[in-house]
Amino acid sequence: MVIVMNPDATREDADAIVALIAAAGGEAFVSRGVSRTIIGLVGDVTHFETLNLKSMRGVADVVRISTPYKLVSRENHPERSTVRVAGVPIGPDTVTLIAGPCAVETPEQTLEAALMARAAGATLLRGGAYKPRTSPYAFQGLGEAGLRILADVRAETGLPIVTEVVDAHDVELVASYADMLQVGTRNAQNFTLLQAVGAAGMPVMLKRGMNATIEEWLMAAEYIAQRGNLDIVLCERGIRTFETATRNTLDVSAVPMAQRLSHLPVIVDPSHSGGRRDLVLPLTRAAIAVGADGVIIDVHPHPEQALCDGPQALIRDDLDELSRAIRAFAPLMNRTLATPEPSLLT
Amino acid sequence: MVIVMNPDATREDADAIVALIAAAGGEAFVSRGVSRTIIGLVGDVTHFETLNLKSMRGVADVVRISTPYKLVSRENHPERSTVRVAGVPIGPDTVTLIAGPCAVETPEQTLEAALMARAAGATLLRGGAYKPRTSPYAFQGLGEAGLRILADVRAETGLPIVTEVVDAHDVELVASYADMLQVGTRNAQNFTLLQAVGAAGMPVMLKRGMNATIEEWLMAAEYIAQRGNLDIVLCERGIRTFETATRNTLDVSAVPMAQRLSHLPVIVDPSHSGGRRDLVLPLTRAAIAVGADGVIIDVHPHPEQALCDGPQALIRDDLDELSRAIRAFAPLMNRTLATPEPSLLT
Amino acid sequence: MVIVMNPDATREDADAIVALIAAAGGEAFVSRGVSRTIIGLVGDVTHFETLNLKSMRGVADVVRISTPYKLVSRENHPERSTVRVAGVPIGPDTVTLIAGPCAVETPEQTLEAALMARAAGATLLRGGAYKPRTSPYAFQGLGEAGLRILADVRAETGLPIVTEVVDAHDVELVASYADMLQVGTRNAQNFTLLQAVGAAGMPVMLKRGMNATIEEWLMAAEYIAQRGNLDIVLCERGIRTFETATRNTLDVSAVPMAQRLSHLPVIVDPSHSGGRRDLVLPLTRAAIAVGADGVIIDVHPHPEQALCDGPQALIRDDLDELSRAIRAFAPLMNRTLATPEPSLLT
Amino acid sequence: MVIVMNPDATREDADAIVALIAAAGGEAFVSRGVSRTIIGLVGDVTHFETLNLKSMRGVADVVRISTPYKLVSRENHPERSTVRVAGVPIGPDTVTLIAGPCAVETPEQTLEAALMARAAGATLLRGGAYKPRTSPYAFQGLGEAGLRILADVRAETGLPIVTEVVDAHDVELVASYADMLQVGTRNAQNFTLLQAVGAAGMPVMLKRGMNATIEEWLMAAEYIAQRGNLDIVLCERGIRTFETATRNTLDVSAVPMAQRLSHLPVIVDPSHSGGRRDLVLPLTRAAIAVGADGVIIDVHPHPEQALCDGPQALIRDDLDELSRAIRAFAPLMNRTLATPEPSLLT
Repeated sequence: MVIVMNPDATREDADAIVALIAAAGGEAFVSRGVSRTIIGLVGDVTHFETLNLKSMRGVADVVRISTPYKLVSRENHPERSTVRVAGVPIGPDTVTLIAGPCAVETPEQTLEAALMARAAGATLLRGGAYKPRTSPYAFQGLGEAGLRILADVRAETGLPIVTEVVDAHDVELVASYADMLQVGTRNAQNFTLLQAVGAAGMPVMLKRGMNATIEEWLMAAEYIAQRGNLDIVLCERGIRTFETATRNTLDVSAVPMAQRLSHLPVIVDPSHSGGRRDLVLPLTRAAIAVGADGVIIDVHPHPEQALCDGPQALIRDDLDELSRAIRAFAPLMNRTLATPEPSLLT
Repeated sequence: MVIVMNPDATREDADAIVALIAAAGGEAFVSRGVSRTIIGLVGDVTHFETLNLKSMRGVADVVRISTPYKLVSRENHPERSTVRVAGVPIGPDTVTLIAGPCAVETPEQTLEAALMARAAGATLLRGGAYKPRTSPYAFQGLGEAGLRILADVRAETGLPIVTEVVDAHDVELVASYADMLQVGTRNAQNFTLLQAVGAAGMPVMLKRGMNATIEEWLMAAEYIAQRGNLDIVLCERGIRTFETATRNTLDVSAVPMAQRLSHLPVIVDPSHSGGRRDLVLPLTRAAIAVGADGVIIDVHPHPEQALCDGPQALIRDDLDELSRAIRAFAPLMNRTLATPEPSLLT
Repeated sequence: MVIVMNPDATREDADAIVALIAAAGGEAFVSRGVSRTIIGLVGDVTHFETLNLKSMRGVADVVRISTPYKLVSRENHPERSTVRVAGVPIGPDTVTLIAGPCAVETPEQTLEAALMARAAGATLLRGGAYKPRTSPYAFQGLGEAGLRILADVRAETGLPIVTEVVDAHDVELVASYADMLQVGTRNAQNFTLLQAVGAAGMPVMLKRGMNATIEEWLMAAEYIAQRGNLDIVLCERGIRTFETATRNTLDVSAVPMAQRLSHLPVIVDPSHSGGRRDLVLPLTRAAIAVGADGVIIDVHPHPEQALCDGPQALIRDDLDELSRAIRAFAPLMNRTLATPEPSLLT
Repeated sequence: MVIVMNPDATREDADAIVALIAAAGGEAFVSRGVSRTIIGLVGDVTHFETLNLKSMRGVADVVRISTPYKLVSRENHPERSTVRVAGVPIGPDTVTLIAGPCAVETPEQTLEAALMARAAGATLLRGGAYKPRTSPYAFQGLGEAGLRILADVRAETGLPIVTEVVDAHDVELVASYADMLQVGTRNAQNFTLLQAVGAAGMPVMLKRGMNATIEEWLMAAEYIAQRGNLDIVLCERGIRTFETATRNTLDVSAVPMAQRLSHLPVIVDPSHSGGRRDLVLPLTRAAIAVGADGVIIDVHPHPEQALCDGPQALIRDDLDELSRAIRAFAPLMNRTLATPEPSLLT
């Protein structure tokens, strides 16, 4: 942390800050320049932030220079992590395909979507039983009945389940069915929920808030990590911008940026970012090429009947093309399509 | 809802849509132009939206023309509403000043802030016992101990309490202390929480999500209303934009826009939007002049010691000026500074 | 300027920077902390910026701490400036009403609009002869014929003219008719044009780019000032955000922010920011209450026939109300409605 | 164009619109539904837009349903175009690598950069002689001296030149040296300049305005096309969002979107969008994978000495990796690295 003093700040102003920092158990180094004095602080930055240094006399600016997240930071953990979901790796050596229906509607639709997904190379099944919807009049998901359908489909297809949880008090229930918990974009700063999934002892997929900076996204991950859970997969799903031609703007740059700042795997959701079926394939290719550790895709056997986000769901034919693209692009990134680890299959 | 067909759509394409809408219990009116056919739909729009009309053959665009919110809409409720919080009105005839500390820290700090607020004309006390913080390492609020402090200060000052609730399962507890529940910007799409406060039988202040459109904000209010609670006050608190000189960008236009679209009162938070103490006064004046029904202000007896958002808190001297400004500007808007209603004081 | 070194930067890395800065004629002060070294630079920051310090080994971050604009900065010019346009002041003691048609269409329409404006208290006439339009198929303005109409209307009404110039090579021509040159939002980074109006020897109204930060806006003003022209009035006209309910989002906070950072007057355009006639009055009140030095308003005798931006133009009845509002709110800001200076009327 | 009437609009309101449209030479089809009347318009939409229909009594909304651009639209030109720059194709069958220094500084630096670019597979040389810079105190380019350097380097290397023009009145001069004119992001709505390059009889690269929607970008292209020049290459270079970790946010989705809406080639600038050297390679891969027709890259022999945008310039080693990546990814898109056409080499 660096404090920049005003040009007209006095020596006493600087001394007051040095004394305050010393009292707070830190050290302050004063640099007096011709036009300004600059004070570098060393110690517990989180504590310094509560000191309200900007309100001190003579202070022009306070610049934080270390990252506010620790456990998910790559600074102290230079090797990139691999998260395993029921034996399926998500990490730097693979491209993991997660696919399934946006919302679980019926056993038939879910099974059919899962079979489509598996045929395309997916090794994890996505599907929502609890759906956060902008309108209270829209389909909100089947709840536990949906979770039971997912479990049945897992039994039939062998695909582990990734499913969203929207309330801290549902975590235990959802975790009793799921293999990976998903925190959605609208809950990216629901800190109670983040802490609850952090305590659930199960891998978590954390979608980026549609208005979250990369730093805020990593801070949200830090909430989960702080409860002892480092099995976190970050998911870029588009941010809100002025452009209205697409539902959101997929921020591909965020993938290498987050991978540089954090050791956690980073995947991409090309379905929700674009909001258009015809964008899913090009955005999937872009995701792999930019270095994503996987993609999560909406599929639906009959998107024209979908109760949620039908316009962006892939159908059977799209999936063949998607599958071919992933298999063609992954090797160029020195990756293979993720498969369950052999040891776990015995 | 209007469906715009592609220039090369066939008569059969249009007929298929008419049939689908009829099967869904609605009516479809076909307009055949020289270059395009347009189909107007009448009936249950929410149901039509699940039909995934965009996926139908020949469809170029689907345009929704009615508002997706009903209970909070002004269309069926032309008169603007007044919400009463323990006898204090928030509505079209008054400017209500809500003030207090961002976070409850100690009994002394809270009482001192409340007395400052009351002296300035505030008739409702704000103060957070549960604080959603971006960093897991930051002060998260005192929880129930903070609520007890608020209750004590209410007993001493007579100021009803507005306080934030961050989790659906805390609603009952918080409501047992509070006079008005606040839903914060980070929870503006936490639908479980919205439904819970909707069922709490107590006035709710709903902050706009920092990335929420006005329509999404009203949809969030609709979630609350749908549970039977129409005592909702909307609070504009700044949106996230590219500008970094201020913490957020106060969207003053949203005040008259929301008042035109909804019958609910709309207040402004000039403290959190600007994030700077020196902006609170000018933004408060702007809020009143644009037609806000009230303002909610951070005050702190000693902002340099605040555990949360100290840089934006007003001190005693600022409050005098703020109070004078509100008293000067309100009459020009044909409003008075809100006071508790006489009948409730006897 | 402060250079923050990486935790693993060596003493040689810091020495290399000190040597580079010394060679560039500056001074570098090194602060060695426990975890990081920080180097404060003193000297010609603009020159330092060309040194590409971020590419030096061991550098984590380079933080600029002084403002990049000088001539328009309030740091060296603490008193706020008043700009006079043919005797009409725009500055801290007045609220100046500028009004007129968005585009000059006919002599009759322009005169009628000017008379409406004058009756409402306007002392400057706005009107565009050159219109930057998003579509090449839209009305682009009358060009010099429009300027002649404006001059005729000035002769008839006595109102000095504010009109836009869109190309550096038109500056001389436009300046031969105008009393104040306007640079529009789409040209806010047309540096050739900024330099040309800077050399024109005439007051300039500089609209904020719809995607410009406050700092970039002031840098654009610096371009004008650098050519010797400090008669610059800044005009906030809304920024582009994700909100689509309004044409742009009026950033009222930018008014006090720009006034704090710069000595230049700051006015507001409530017509173009909202893009809706019903927002003009509330946004005008907000502008005055937040401290704007004036407002610029679209008026049209027959907006339903306007060739440009009709939906936001005020009509006669609106203007009466606007005029009353300005006269009521200005005194609360210790301002009067601007009138031409007496000395210039003799 | 569709007009949606208010629920309480009368039959007379609708009749008035029908009459107005008829008088304007169009046709209006009225659909009367249970709750609303909808009127579809057929005819000259640009003319209808000047009618200010939103101001008519009873009108709730006016929805434009046809694209406002014609010449660059893919509707009437289904096959994607290839633009040839001195024999080098930019189009659907190739990936064209354009590389060179951001700014021309010296003959040596430009030649060295050009040789690096050519070795990496670039077949067009970029380099700026006129630099639009946010600060008037920053290096503004060498002007015509820079153009002469470019011409000399072209003579030596055989690489045709892409260079920026910032003012309509420089177009003739710049075109006398260049092979392709570039319009930069800050001039994306400088309509005078757009028209001037449209009349220059030379291929144009049109960067997307950093705040331009895809539609506005295509409208800017339409300005150029309207002057008879359809040799336009669109260049996505990042948009301005709330994220500050990268200079701008590369909108990869805009590539397939623009290619769907327009027949013009679309390339990507991964250097300026990210603003970081370490992002250039991943963003280049993403650009090719999403379907871009080429990329334009900053290279510099000694970025630490660059006068402009050094932090994002690639050096020799980076270029080898970039070259390998392009050659590996292009075939997966059924493209080859663009080379000058044989017939032009004889």
